[in-house]
Amino acid sequence: MHLSRRSLLRASTAAALLSATGRQSAAAGLVGRAKDELPTPALVVDLDQLEGNITRLASHAKSAGIALRPHAKTHKCAAIARLQMAAGALGVCVATLREAEAMAEGGVGGLLLTSEMVGGVKIRRLVELTRRRPDTMSVVDDPGHAAELSAAARAAGLTLNVLIDIDPGSRRTGIAPGEKAADLARRITALPGLRLRGIHCYSGSSAHVTGFEQRRAHSEKAMAPAIATFLELRRDGLPMEILSGGSTGTYNIDPAFGAMTELQAGSYVFMDVDYRRIGGKSGAVYEDFAPSLAVIATVISRPERNRATIDAGLKAFATDRKFGPEPKDLAGATFSWGGDEHGILDLAKASREPRLGDRLEFIVPHCDPTVNLHDHIHALRGDRVEAVWPVARGYG
Amino acid sequence: MHLSRRSLLRASTAAALLSATGRQSAAAGLVGRAKDELPTPALVVDLDQLEGNITRLASHAKSAGIALRPHAKTHKCAAIARLQMAAGALGVCVATLREAEAMAEGGVGGLLLTSEMVGGVKIRRLVELTRRRPDTMSVVDDPGHAAELSAAARAAGLTLNVLIDIDPGSRRTGIAPGEKAADLARRITALPGLRLRGIHCYSGSSAHVTGFEQRRAHSEKAMAPAIATFLELRRDGLPMEILSGGSTGTYNIDPAFGAMTELQAGSYVFMDVDYRRIGGKSGAVYEDFAPSLAVIATVISRPERNRATIDAGLKAFATDRKFGPEPKDLAGATFSWGGDEHGILDLAKASREPRLGDRLEFIVPHCDPTVNLHDHIHALRGDRVEAVWPVARGYG
Repeated sequence: MHLSRRSLLRASTAAALLSATGRQSAAAGLVGRAKDELPTPALVVDLDQLEGNITRLASHAKSAGIALRPHAKTHKCAAIARLQMAAGALGVCVATLREAEAMAEGGVGGLLLTSEMVGGVKIRRLVELTRRRPDTMSVVDDPGHAAELSAAARAAGLTLNVLIDIDPGSRRTGIAPGEKAADLARRITALPGLRLRGIHCYSGSSAHVTGFEQRRAHSEKAMAPAIATFLELRRDGLPMEILSGGSTGTYNIDPAFGAMTELQAGSYVFMDVDYRRIGGKSGAVYEDFAPSLAVIATVISRPERNRATIDAGLKAFATDRKFGPEPKDLAGATFSWGGDEHGILDLAKASREPRLGDRLEFIVPHCDPTVNLHDHIHALRGDRVEAVWPVARGYG
Repeated sequence: MHLSRRSLLRASTAAALLSATGRQSAAAGLVGRAKDELPTPALVVDLDQLEGNITRLASHAKSAGIALRPHAKTHKCAAIARLQMAAGALGVCVATLREAEAMAEGGVGGLLLTSEMVGGVKIRRLVELTRRRPDTMSVVDDPGHAAELSAAARAAGLTLNVLIDIDPGSRRTGIAPGEKAADLARRITALPGLRLRGIHCYSGSSAHVTGFEQRRAHSEKAMAPAIATFLELRRDGLPMEILSGGSTGTYNIDPAFGAMTELQAGSYVFMDVDYRRIGGKSGAVYEDFAPSLAVIATVISRPERNRATIDAGLKAFATDRKFGPEPKDLAGATFSWGGDEHGILDLAKASREPRLGDRLEFIVPHCDPTVNLHDHIHALRGDRVEAVWPVARGYG
């Protein structure tokens, strides 16, 4: 069996990879169609709401005197990044090289990689990206890593822009604020091929604190040490142009701290059940931005009066939160997970009884990882598909 | 702004969709490389282990006198389905039309869609698929749905093969066993354009019961009503060729029930933390099949002695279980989620201290939804990439 098996394996790569082209054409063929013609589950965005969200944050940032470099890990779509740029963003943050490369291909610059690009494979790609987009920046929290980046930059004959990544207390990545960060900053300024631009400090744990005042207090405490370090290094004459941080949860909190130069909010373009639950400045539901993103699902089984099973499960909605999606137009129905491709709606207290074949829309539990589950975002103007955007997911 | 914005949106679809072709070429370019050259996080499968798993289940089924139609929702790769066919499978089960179409394109027939294909968009695709692959089968749990399938088959001038989907008590999809199922079966045999082939009954809740004896008892209770219905309808002269069910958890349990004609186990090709925890026929770890699937991640931050942060988080590993991935070669380290692109390893009790830039391999928490997070499976022979397979995820 071994010989034929090996030829089976090899033959498959080329043929299967080629068939992807046909699929992309099929996706493009959906442009101009009615949303009811989309295969379900379908990830859709309401363009009027999306554009409203983008305009709203841009206006807020302008009046608060802070720049915007929104996080593109939320949408992974160059088309949405271009809308953000057109509304005044400096560029976009990205979490992966794949996202960064998709942005660069789509004409978006001002890229900030908010995760450490460690190891030869990543550093080589970072160098290539910087060759195409010399203003690309990435983050560093380790002197050895800084030295490797310096060596790679020198070998390539270019300059890598870096920010010091400071840990806001989340214990994920980042060097400690204060003397350790200051020491790393001084080392970087002494290394050839590197240009220090400032500090990156993202407090993800502040973003989702429930209650506006609690969130404000959490973010203030998390950001204070990084802000102090930033101001001290600036006084010492180190190149501290940028202090980047903030989230959709703290966009109207962090600018008041005074020192931050730019916000990296991401989820505001789409919103989700998660962010709606944290509460707004006034009110129990956080409604500063509209829930523009939805998954359309089809009711595929109605074996009991009080139950409807849909064709969207844990491969269509992110499962990293304790809650599932919320139906947009079916008050009282509660969702539970039914496996890879199934969601189960309990209709005991529902406002109506959907029929077999009905299409239902859901606000997603957590937008970033939900987008990552889909190949395309279908951009709707009313009930028409105006564009189909591939999601730049994956790593290769 | 509106005019330029609209043109931005429209222009983006074609350009962005085209760039996918370049990416597929890049993936194909990895064939023949060392696994250390893969961008991380990378989904990999050990081909020797994969082939061993496929051979093992095939031998078991042969000696147990039951046919195999393994579930391809686990791998979504036609190349793996072809290995399963070469080992004797009748065909493969699939959960989505996208999976079915990828199998058909890859030369794999004998397709059983294990989810109800409800609504005009799905029924049209099912008809097109059946035109290419006349032996395609799907499932039905509702008389109205059966009538719609019949009408579509007549309009297209072909025959749709269907199985009655019976609920094993999971309350997800499926009609009740006994009289309701019998009535649906009789209606289907009276409808033109439909050919009744038998019964589908998948007890997902049995698959993951911990402890072999408990699992056996659970599966026996879940399957008994469907088996009784199957035998009764067969006695009544209805066309009951197929009774399909079973899982990786019950592959060595269900054949003893006597009536089931085929097994649809899927996860056995890869295995995961989830299945290893359910316990085997003897022993606390279920080791009937080798954990062939892994994610390779890079250590990107080491700010404290007892902590290593990797570049794989909730966009690289499925989050639907209570537990995370398990490192393959770092005993004592415990994983916690660090966000979209981060995982955090507590090294307090670890056997060694990985260095910044080290590459670590992890057994995935739950294989099916983890595969769905990746664009490609990199098939390794030892430390070499022998093939790169696109994952047929998504719905469009």
